[in-house]
Amino acid sequence: MSLLPPQITKVIEEFSKLPGIGPKSAERLTFHLLRSGKASPEGLGKALLDLKGELKYCRTCQMVTLQEECEVCRGSGRDRSQVLVVEDPLDVVAFEKVGYRGLYHVLHGVLSPIDGMGPEQLRLRELVERAKAGGIKEVIVATNPDVEGEATAAYIRTQLSPYVPAITRLAHGLPMGADIGFADQTTLREAIEGRRAL
Amino acid sequence: MSLLPPQITKVIEEFSKLPGIGPKSAERLTFHLLRSGKASPEGLGKALLDLKGELKYCRTCQMVTLQEECEVCRGSGRDRSQVLVVEDPLDVVAFEKVGYRGLYHVLHGVLSPIDGMGPEQLRLRELVERAKAGGIKEVIVATNPDVEGEATAAYIRTQLSPYVPAITRLAHGLPMGADIGFADQTTLREAIEGRRAL
Repeated sequence: MSLLPPQITKVIEEFSKLPGIGPKSAERLTFHLLRSGKASPEGLGKALLDLKGELKYCRTCQMVTLQEECEVCRGSGRDRSQVLVVEDPLDVVAFEKVGYRGLYHVLHGVLSPIDGMGPEQLRLRELVERAKAGGIKEVIVATNPDVEGEATAAYIRTQLSPYVPAITRLAHGLPMGADIGFADQTTLREAIEGRRAL
Repeated sequence: MSLLPPQITKVIEEFSKLPGIGPKSAERLTFHLLRSGKASPEGLGKALLDLKGELKYCRTCQMVTLQEECEVCRGSGRDRSQVLVVEDPLDVVAFEKVGYRGLYHVLHGVLSPIDGMGPEQLRLRELVERAKAGGIKEVIVATNPDVEGEATAAYIRTQLSPYVPAITRLAHGLPMGADIGFADQTTLREAIEGRRAL
């Protein structure tokens, strides 16, 4: 690879860090950007540098937003006694599509010691504070049905049980190892309906 | 998707323009960058903006380089009477690995009217000038064995035949529709050895 200038190998290297992109795909993406008329390194590069710029997290549910509070938390006609806890903002988008009418809480990750994700790295403290403030009758834990998601759910139960009357978990209509963001809407609806005590 | 702030949808949109990345993958990559410790939007973004900065194209073979002339063209012990014509810089890397000892010419694309790629968009003029300057005994056309690659090879033959005694094409040991950058080294070696008159 020493034939390629360092700024090209740098882009290949950065692409390779992304999940599902191996060294060969990273090379193809890089050279596609160099000669494509449609995609450009400047377009993607600028978008990436702007990504975190004005990005805020909703002071209530921690969803990504441009304001102090997100659209869902500001919305009328939501059941404010119900909080659905998800791993990331895309999960909120998925649940909004199937007509869930309660509120959310976005953890921005799951407990995963191997990736350096402990309770402090998640938005767990904010969730406990919401629970302590009262008014929440049910917390539905909707972390992905995998090892880290299950561990995170168990941890949340121990943290919230003094403050919340009902802590539930999505029904295992979702196959183990699957990813919520990819589930079809029927499966998600069934999973909300079939939730059980944690 | 209106729940997501515009700078997030912008990154998703830019990722979606890349080959092999659909909307769902683009979402996953974007949120991975937002929370990953290993990959970062700044790292990839900065690398992309630097990509074209100091990048030069070898004045002889059009390979990407940091100098006026690339390593191969400056190198001693190369057969300067032989020029292998490839679509992109990664193909040069692939041929270097199997011990090809002639020179190269990088087209940076293939003829593809549907993508707006005509002769003017490729580094074809530079190739014809090299041929006119003399000293080249053989041009090996190593465009990919697909429709665009074959059309480009035929076009190169008509352009170079007045100036170059032998114009050859890689042997079709490569299966049609394959991609040179992905071929295994044995297939590439056989393809060089089995080349035939165009």
